[in-house]
Amino acid sequence: MAQFKRIAVVGAGLIGGSILLAAARKGLAGSLACWSRSEKSRATLRDFGVAEVFDDAATCVRGADLVIVTTPVDTAAETFLAITPGLSPGAIVTDAGSVKAAILLAARHLPATNPFIGSHPMAGGEKAGAAHAAANLFEGRVCFLTPTGAEDPKALAAVRLFWQELGSVLHETDAAQHDEIVAAISHVPHAAASALMLAVMDQPGFRRFAAGAGLRDSTRVAAGEESLWVGIMLANPRHTVAGLLAVERRAAELRTAIEANDVPTLRRLLAEARIARQSLDRSE
Amino acid sequence: MAQFKRIAVVGAGLIGGSILLAAARKGLAGSLACWSRSEKSRATLRDFGVAEVFDDAATCVRGADLVIVTTPVDTAAETFLAITPGLSPGAIVTDAGSVKAAILLAARHLPATNPFIGSHPMAGGEKAGAAHAAANLFEGRVCFLTPTGAEDPKALAAVRLFWQELGSVLHETDAAQHDEIVAAISHVPHAAASALMLAVMDQPGFRRFAAGAGLRDSTRVAAGEESLWVGIMLANPRHTVAGLLAVERRAAELRTAIEANDVPTLRRLLAEARIARQSLDRSE
Repeated sequence: MAQFKRIAVVGAGLIGGSILLAAARKGLAGSLACWSRSEKSRATLRDFGVAEVFDDAATCVRGADLVIVTTPVDTAAETFLAITPGLSPGAIVTDAGSVKAAILLAARHLPATNPFIGSHPMAGGEKAGAAHAAANLFEGRVCFLTPTGAEDPKALAAVRLFWQELGSVLHETDAAQHDEIVAAISHVPHAAASALMLAVMDQPGFRRFAAGAGLRDSTRVAAGEESLWVGIMLANPRHTVAGLLAVERRAAELRTAIEANDVPTLRRLLAEARIARQSLDRSE
Repeated sequence: MAQFKRIAVVGAGLIGGSILLAAARKGLAGSLACWSRSEKSRATLRDFGVAEVFDDAATCVRGADLVIVTTPVDTAAETFLAITPGLSPGAIVTDAGSVKAAILLAARHLPATNPFIGSHPMAGGEKAGAAHAAANLFEGRVCFLTPTGAEDPKALAAVRLFWQELGSVLHETDAAQHDEIVAAISHVPHAAASALMLAVMDQPGFRRFAAGAGLRDSTRVAAGEESLWVGIMLANPRHTVAGLLAVERRAAELRTAIEANDVPTLRRLLAEARIARQSLDRSE
């Protein structure tokens, strides 16, 4: 028997589209519904043929017992307000946003009868949009849940089971801790990759023909849509700013060692970075 | 008929080992010779079964009409001195170093009867050593040649043909211009990736389990051996320092925009970085 009667995905881009495809393949709901602001995305979603596609968010969530909000993080509050008129009493609401403290605040706009559990599947990519959706997007990927401790345990258990069915590896923590973690491993690397790309394109020696895998990989995430990332960085400013400042200081340390022809310091810094980077692969 | 009677590769790690495998496969020489400082590398090279392996650099180059020096850039001068007693008159010498102006200076140690042509195949990787060598390493990759204009045209033509036979896409420029280009597209990205890795590992929120493809790709090159990269950066200090300073300034611009909650500036910077990064893929 399907876990849910009806799942509604509100704002179906890469993440939302992938949730629909995965939920359909796994048979997680009696029926699926989705909404997107853009006619182009709605057409893509219709082509998937797995969910009823709506152009009104409140209508989309009507009759759903699980609602997943996958709109950009800076529109979370307005999306919660938009779906409120259509929410069934008791319907569980979750999301997929890259920040959690700000979304937990925005979720206060939801009716008290609708439990909200913050989710963050770490499965984004620089290619946004439902056109890049894939049913296996969540397989083996970390998904954070940020319960407050005040929610209905049955709602929490249902959201846990949902992401596990999609293949996610769950990690539960509080919203503040979540935001600190993702700043370090996602938001700061994204901003640093953008800074590197901007710096490289300004160099008089920059030639596209010579760009190899090193530059391409180092800057890959900078190809991400700014329409998503402005909202993410501004919703997690403190830790992102601290991390960027650390990048500036570490770059200055390396630069100073090169300027001073300081072999031992340069060797030590590069060795520390190498060892740290190699340890990332060992944790796979 | 093979292009060369005998090719000697001096200092056979990833690049040197790959040259040997490729030259053997393509039949570019009547015989192949190689030297490595380390017994472990010599054992790997013997396992390849394509070249005579020497533990003395001067003996290795004896009788060769093409000698390729693939030792780390900071040992180029000592390697040129070490091979001099064994060089046949007229034997062409080239290299594979990531900097060219400093190596051109070091090549003045070679006998006047041995033409030197600077080469830089852009085919390194964070996995060094002959154990990672591959015959197809140079296929479709840019290889810089930095002739001075003063060399024997036949020697230059022979070196061109050699790299083309290995599948390289040649690009000729002078040593100073080469160094400026590779700073922008390789040395600065490497240093920036190291700075990012150092900054991330210092963040209180850093958790290895949560590190995804974004962090891994952004820092991949930082896993490179510092024993190679200290020499490279210190042999190309001016452009690497200028690029790192630009990284620091661009990171500070992004940070300041986040601190000030300045949506238009943050959006503009991330959009410029995205467009520049996307243009790298279009140039493939």
